[in-house]
Amino acid sequence: MQIESFKSLLPKYKCIFFDAFGVLKTYNGLLPGIENTFDYLKAQGQDYYIVTNDASRSPEQLADSYHKLGLFSITADKIISSGMITKEYIDLKVDGGIVAYLGTANSANYLVSDGIKMLPVSAIDDSNIGEVNALVLLDDEGFNWFHDLNKTVNLLRKRTIPAIVANTDNTYPLTKTDVAIAIGGVATMIESILGRRFIRFGKPDSQMFMFAYDMLRQKMEISKREILMVGDTLHTDILGGNKFGLDTALVLTGNTRIDDAETKIKSTGIVPTHICESAVIEL
Amino acid sequence: MQIESFKSLLPKYKCIFFDAFGVLKTYNGLLPGIENTFDYLKAQGQDYYIVTNDASRSPEQLADSYHKLGLFSITADKIISSGMITKEYIDLKVDGGIVAYLGTANSANYLVSDGIKMLPVSAIDDSNIGEVNALVLLDDEGFNWFHDLNKTVNLLRKRTIPAIVANTDNTYPLTKTDVAIAIGGVATMIESILGRRFIRFGKPDSQMFMFAYDMLRQKMEISKREILMVGDTLHTDILGGNKFGLDTALVLTGNTRIDDAETKIKSTGIVPTHICESAVIEL
Amino acid sequence: MQIESFKSLLPKYKCIFFDAFGVLKTYNGLLPGIENTFDYLKAQGQDYYIVTNDASRSPEQLADSYHKLGLFSITADKIISSGMITKEYIDLKVDGGIVAYLGTANSANYLVSDGIKMLPVSAIDDSNIGEVNALVLLDDEGFNWFHDLNKTVNLLRKRTIPAIVANTDNTYPLTKTDVAIAIGGVATMIESILGRRFIRFGKPDSQMFMFAYDMLRQKMEISKREILMVGDTLHTDILGGNKFGLDTALVLTGNTRIDDAETKIKSTGIVPTHICESAVIEL
Amino acid sequence: MQIESFKSLLPKYKCIFFDAFGVLKTYNGLLPGIENTFDYLKAQGQDYYIVTNDASRSPEQLADSYHKLGLFSITADKIISSGMITKEYIDLKVDGGIVAYLGTANSANYLVSDGIKMLPVSAIDDSNIGEVNALVLLDDEGFNWFHDLNKTVNLLRKRTIPAIVANTDNTYPLTKTDVAIAIGGVATMIESILGRRFIRFGKPDSQMFMFAYDMLRQKMEISKREILMVGDTLHTDILGGNKFGLDTALVLTGNTRIDDAETKIKSTGIVPTHICESAVIEL
Repeated sequence: MQIESFKSLLPKYKCIFFDAFGVLKTYNGLLPGIENTFDYLKAQGQDYYIVTNDASRSPEQLADSYHKLGLFSITADKIISSGMITKEYIDLKVDGGIVAYLGTANSANYLVSDGIKMLPVSAIDDSNIGEVNALVLLDDEGFNWFHDLNKTVNLLRKRTIPAIVANTDNTYPLTKTDVAIAIGGVATMIESILGRRFIRFGKPDSQMFMFAYDMLRQKMEISKREILMVGDTLHTDILGGNKFGLDTALVLTGNTRIDDAETKIKSTGIVPTHICESAVIEL
Repeated sequence: MQIESFKSLLPKYKCIFFDAFGVLKTYNGLLPGIENTFDYLKAQGQDYYIVTNDASRSPEQLADSYHKLGLFSITADKIISSGMITKEYIDLKVDGGIVAYLGTANSANYLVSDGIKMLPVSAIDDSNIGEVNALVLLDDEGFNWFHDLNKTVNLLRKRTIPAIVANTDNTYPLTKTDVAIAIGGVATMIESILGRRFIRFGKPDSQMFMFAYDMLRQKMEISKREILMVGDTLHTDILGGNKFGLDTALVLTGNTRIDDAETKIKSTGIVPTHICESAVIEL
Repeated sequence: MQIESFKSLLPKYKCIFFDAFGVLKTYNGLLPGIENTFDYLKAQGQDYYIVTNDASRSPEQLADSYHKLGLFSITADKIISSGMITKEYIDLKVDGGIVAYLGTANSANYLVSDGIKMLPVSAIDDSNIGEVNALVLLDDEGFNWFHDLNKTVNLLRKRTIPAIVANTDNTYPLTKTDVAIAIGGVATMIESILGRRFIRFGKPDSQMFMFAYDMLRQKMEISKREILMVGDTLHTDILGGNKFGLDTALVLTGNTRIDDAETKIKSTGIVPTHICESAVIEL
Repeated sequence: MQIESFKSLLPKYKCIFFDAFGVLKTYNGLLPGIENTFDYLKAQGQDYYIVTNDASRSPEQLADSYHKLGLFSITADKIISSGMITKEYIDLKVDGGIVAYLGTANSANYLVSDGIKMLPVSAIDDSNIGEVNALVLLDDEGFNWFHDLNKTVNLLRKRTIPAIVANTDNTYPLTKTDVAIAIGGVATMIESILGRRFIRFGKPDSQMFMFAYDMLRQKMEISKREILMVGDTLHTDILGGNKFGLDTALVLTGNTRIDDAETKIKSTGIVPTHICESAVIEL
């Protein structure tokens, strides 16, 4: 397993796609020095996007969260989130009525579409269940698990509607030792109980890469060979980037540690083009 | 699909094994007339056992619940529950320390074994996590789902211990239209998040049938051909009975309805020896 | 369940995407009258593409097969196949060496890329296994199942390489009563033995829709709302179309029959925008 | 991870259950010195059984194969195989007609039961398909994979019959570097294509342990605490032994190697009571 310097990879590419969690930040805050990477890219005239499986907040709120940590290079227009794909889906495919959700009120806010009423699952009852046209799973907080997961199972048994989950992770790191069940994990639970599969937006699915690639092509002439996807997770970032035809770089600052990288690559058959210790560039 | 009268099947067998939920009772209470069935069996000198996937109560408490409904033929010694197999497992395989549980305090009570401390998952912390030697999932009530499911995931990541679930159903009927997620469903959730399989006791596993068969053989000379398993669920009662080598009768008073019985049998390949409308005998 | 006339749906759309098998043809040959549909579309000035999970032949060969049956409207440039996505993947992501394949020599022919040697799995041995950089599963014929599936399992245990399967179906209809195991089913087999997931191209994945949509946008100004996806299979055609944001029409001439359509829609939660008996237009 | 001497464990137990492959023998032949272990047990007056997931031969033929290798302590009456449980199932549950099989003629031979005709899948056609009452999967050799696996899929689509597989392994070691797909793996393939689960006999299922335990109890007074299960595979031998309530010893001469034992135990949560290098006793 050959470890390369992240900086040494860059000359080949016109644009870099970054995953967020495990690459730019951890449960602890920003990766020290990560702002240098963006300064360097700007100095070199290279473009970048953050491609993130996050449906809990709008791009504006996500950008704000970086600004509060002192990373000002990440603006809302640089963020492609699975929440944005979810919003596009609701716009195109849900024809009025209610979209029920599991998550915080805030996570539902930015999904509001013309003629659509967003209601938490807890607010669905016999009087309005007939108007529910979709269910979206957005965040693991903001609802009572016992009551609302039971309600969700019954809602999906009674109404033949699409269920969308904008997150493919089962857990996320909470501290150095503990994880929390992510809304993607909650979705997996309900799928296994109902024996059906939900619609999932987010890496490794190609749709987010396509969204970013489309935005790029409106600005410049670029081929897939000139884009590098950088991520910490084999089965989302690296698999998704590979499948879309991009070069990929695995960084060891998140879900994949230096001592299990080789084993994981071997057992999954998901092979990154490059492996780097971190996406931080020492200036 | 030929429907037979339950009474007409009985002469062939020395002992009848009954599933409980969906066969003797529903969310509504006892099946009207089910007491006749037991009176009839006693009159004919035929033996019976209740073989039930229930780990939420002791056999004594289960028997009590039938007595309160007016069915006095079901005594504790006639009940084989998956909870009893769980208790045997703890007795034989857990060598002291703490057994953590998800469920009510009552469900944990009857599992207490010499030298074992039963503690709810909520009571596990850094001070005692090192002493936890097993986890049992007993009941879907009695704990805070959000906090304790997250705690359970982390407990199983930190401690290499067996996790036992004494229930194979994902849901159970709550009313005519609604279901509730069973502790078996909660277990499925956690398994899918951790990517590992728990130890499951309960039908279709052979161990409960073996337990009942052992008790029978201590009382009489009997072969598997002389036992009939009666149940409402193909993938637990009927599959389990078939696999153990018993004749099986599917009744249509619970999970399998008359209009989907044929489709379900065809799609699963689980074929009961007999199909009956109900286990109730008209006297 | 409301059945609509296919013709009545068309005015709303600028372009129609058709699945091939079960929509335009069956094991029996072309659907009688299907050529009318294409004549009608041309007369109305509406565009169309065939979007098919087929990696066994090149677009040219696929087009030829329609011409031989008397359907001349389907030319190679109108066909988007999962084989084309596979070819793009090999071009972009495989850097020389050998690509091993399961399938006929013909199926491998059109995937040849500069600097890549295509070899059947049967031709891989100790002398060249080190040069194998990818495995593709193309067709269920053209190899010895016993020898070559065993060889494939060992190849993937020894080499950490991507495995690509350009087909998501487990079986395909052979006659009115019989099916054949598709190469997608063969892939599922090997995945379950190795405990890992292959890269799958083909519906419901978005990449093929994106490919067609890109070609369309180079010719005209068009939004996703102006495209209709027509298919006979819920979990590929309809799910894929829905997920990409297109309107979808389920036709009942293939995998989904009129008497099980409602049950399947209900149990999967995959809901087509429209349901039609067939894509044939009576002139 | 503490490694104990196998000999030091023995005093506690009245009977030892041994897995065969990976414990007594490998693809290379007998483990050198394994005959000492049986001499020692006999000298100490301790009983033993071989509990093996093997349905390809009768206990007599299995015993013969040990005698040919020079191990005469293993006689037919000491062998409990998953094939024997399969035979009991056919005797009790198949009421005449044809049992179709995948495997060698020899593997089918010893399953013959009164009034049952054993026929290879290749011999099933329209003239006799209506008489087929069960399918058994016995061995990965003795049939044409392409033709007979396709035939099997169609047989199970047309006939609502039980399918039994007497082997839970997906692969078995062929040489130091290569594996072969086992009939258990072939079964997994067909299950995933049909979307249904077969009846599986063999460890970790309790039925084989029960069979051996029953035989023991006819000879002596013995409790589960006085039996040790010895095996090389966590998810069959160790899980099965644990679940049945036995003490278990993992040996490192087969599927589990010394350098991955700890990782596998941690990731599966299947914990043996003891870990030993080998079941060989130096005299």
